[in-house]
Amino acid sequence: MKPFINSSQAIRREILEGLVYAHGDKLRWVKGTGIVVRKILPEKGVALISGGGSGHEPAHIGYVGQNMLTSAVMGTFFLPPAVDEILQSIQLADNGDGVLLIIKNFEKDLASFLAAEKKAIALGHHVKHVIVNDDCSIETETFKKRRRGVAGTVFVHKILGAAAAKGMPLNELELLGGQVIYNLNTLGVAFSPASQLGEIPSQYTLANNEMYYGIGIHGEPGYKIEQMKSSERIAIELFNKIIDQYDDSRLKSCGILVNGLGSTPLLELAVFTNHVRQLFDIDDIPVLFKKTGNFLTSYDTQGLSLTILNIIDNNWLQLLEAPTDAFGW
Amino acid sequence: MKPFINSSQAIRREILEGLVYAHGDKLRWVKGTGIVVRKILPEKGVALISGGGSGHEPAHIGYVGQNMLTSAVMGTFFLPPAVDEILQSIQLADNGDGVLLIIKNFEKDLASFLAAEKKAIALGHHVKHVIVNDDCSIETETFKKRRRGVAGTVFVHKILGAAAAKGMPLNELELLGGQVIYNLNTLGVAFSPASQLGEIPSQYTLANNEMYYGIGIHGEPGYKIEQMKSSERIAIELFNKIIDQYDDSRLKSCGILVNGLGSTPLLELAVFTNHVRQLFDIDDIPVLFKKTGNFLTSYDTQGLSLTILNIIDNNWLQLLEAPTDAFGW
Repeated sequence: MKPFINSSQAIRREILEGLVYAHGDKLRWVKGTGIVVRKILPEKGVALISGGGSGHEPAHIGYVGQNMLTSAVMGTFFLPPAVDEILQSIQLADNGDGVLLIIKNFEKDLASFLAAEKKAIALGHHVKHVIVNDDCSIETETFKKRRRGVAGTVFVHKILGAAAAKGMPLNELELLGGQVIYNLNTLGVAFSPASQLGEIPSQYTLANNEMYYGIGIHGEPGYKIEQMKSSERIAIELFNKIIDQYDDSRLKSCGILVNGLGSTPLLELAVFTNHVRQLFDIDDIPVLFKKTGNFLTSYDTQGLSLTILNIIDNNWLQLLEAPTDAFGW
Repeated sequence: MKPFINSSQAIRREILEGLVYAHGDKLRWVKGTGIVVRKILPEKGVALISGGGSGHEPAHIGYVGQNMLTSAVMGTFFLPPAVDEILQSIQLADNGDGVLLIIKNFEKDLASFLAAEKKAIALGHHVKHVIVNDDCSIETETFKKRRRGVAGTVFVHKILGAAAAKGMPLNELELLGGQVIYNLNTLGVAFSPASQLGEIPSQYTLANNEMYYGIGIHGEPGYKIEQMKSSERIAIELFNKIIDQYDDSRLKSCGILVNGLGSTPLLELAVFTNHVRQLFDIDDIPVLFKKTGNFLTSYDTQGLSLTILNIIDNNWLQLLEAPTDAFGW
């Protein structure tokens, strides 16, 4: 057990207490829960709520702020928040203009968030949701796409958050979310799984000098284990597999997110970003928006993911570029 | 050799090309060199320049921007930039109001930066420097303070950068720098050294489950190897040793920086921050400014450092809080 993990019970409180302490001018933590809300809640506009287990920092608390989320709800290690806490977050965030839940496509996350949505609607709240399923990894036996919700979720927070701040109503936000998600694909690679921790052990192990393409963000398996390759070769694998998700005709300009999975130094993310740049240059696809850093992690996993957003509407670019005080962006 | 490091020769170019690509709206890289400057150079005000080897990302390129550095110069892995590149950076950045060099206290860094300063003065530039020596680790044999320049350097960039942007002249910036550095102390701990890379191998090794207090940022040794302790115990060791640097009478309010050394996930930095918070609470010392993240790393070292700034002047707080577009802040 690493020295920073005192117990899987306490970890959620300790993370939130530490991060809200560091960023407390903007954020309010509802003690005893996993709920963080903006310190000053907007008086109008749809409220956006997302969440997930601990272990994905800076997600999702790092995206609470101007032009992004109204509230984030954190569960225990790698497990989604409880229904009642999501409900409480909805009650806190809703100013009467309704609430949109941004849910990552994992069975347990869906169960929690959709049950909370149902309860909130019964209480008179207007609530809708979008389900982010950007992971284009496949099951190796069935060739079925896994479609888990991974790092591209951060782009959904930003585009929808900025649109909500501009006054877009709930119905339209739901539609916009669907369009963004349809144009969003992510693929990751791990050089080591996260340290086992809490109730969720990793579903794979890797020998030294092995890597695993297509892994999830809670220790879920990928599609191919290989001997470690160069950064260029990794970039080619991820880039090609993602580009294949788009019809040639519809990939005109892109936004990219190079995301570290927790223990990957920025030096390595920078070098990888440079190799991704070369591949876009070769294919002559303009990249209008770029982010490189740790955005949605898998505790201390060594590895990274590449997200490509097909920007089909110039407004999306403006929404991505809108200023925010969310510390994780 | 890790897959992201193709050669220690190429690494500087690849890092800069990747990071300037990701943040290219604000930064200009002078190709073939380690120099990055603000895309739009201020027409007046003292220019601030800092730098060091590769392997410290986001430092120092991440601090080029509004209210921070005018230019950063990067050397090869863990080695400072060459004299002529620092000179070229001075020539690019100087608008006639002079240049302040912010140098980390390492022999090789001093040699490069001071030689460049001398050359620039001979060419008619007004150049001064400050030497950051915030590391309060000690030599175990001589009990001499090591006084290397480490993560606290980031606070120096911000305070002096914001003061320069307000029009503070070169002489006063040099004095302010001295005051800030006198009130700045940092202490680190490593759970593993950086992977060996390039010409600078680590000067220590650690067994699994060992940690080393007081290490430097280029694989330099610390003052004490121990079995891994809990986050609370680590916080107590670093906090007490740093607090001991200040007379009781002069520590009225603080700024803190919890810095990951490269491979430390934010979850762990958050938990550690929370334990540091408790220690300040117990001693009833107000903490007016806080940062938690990866600011000045040592490639993929597992570990962290704590920096405490004694805020003796309320203006320092305003300068720390001034907005910036520097991506590493």
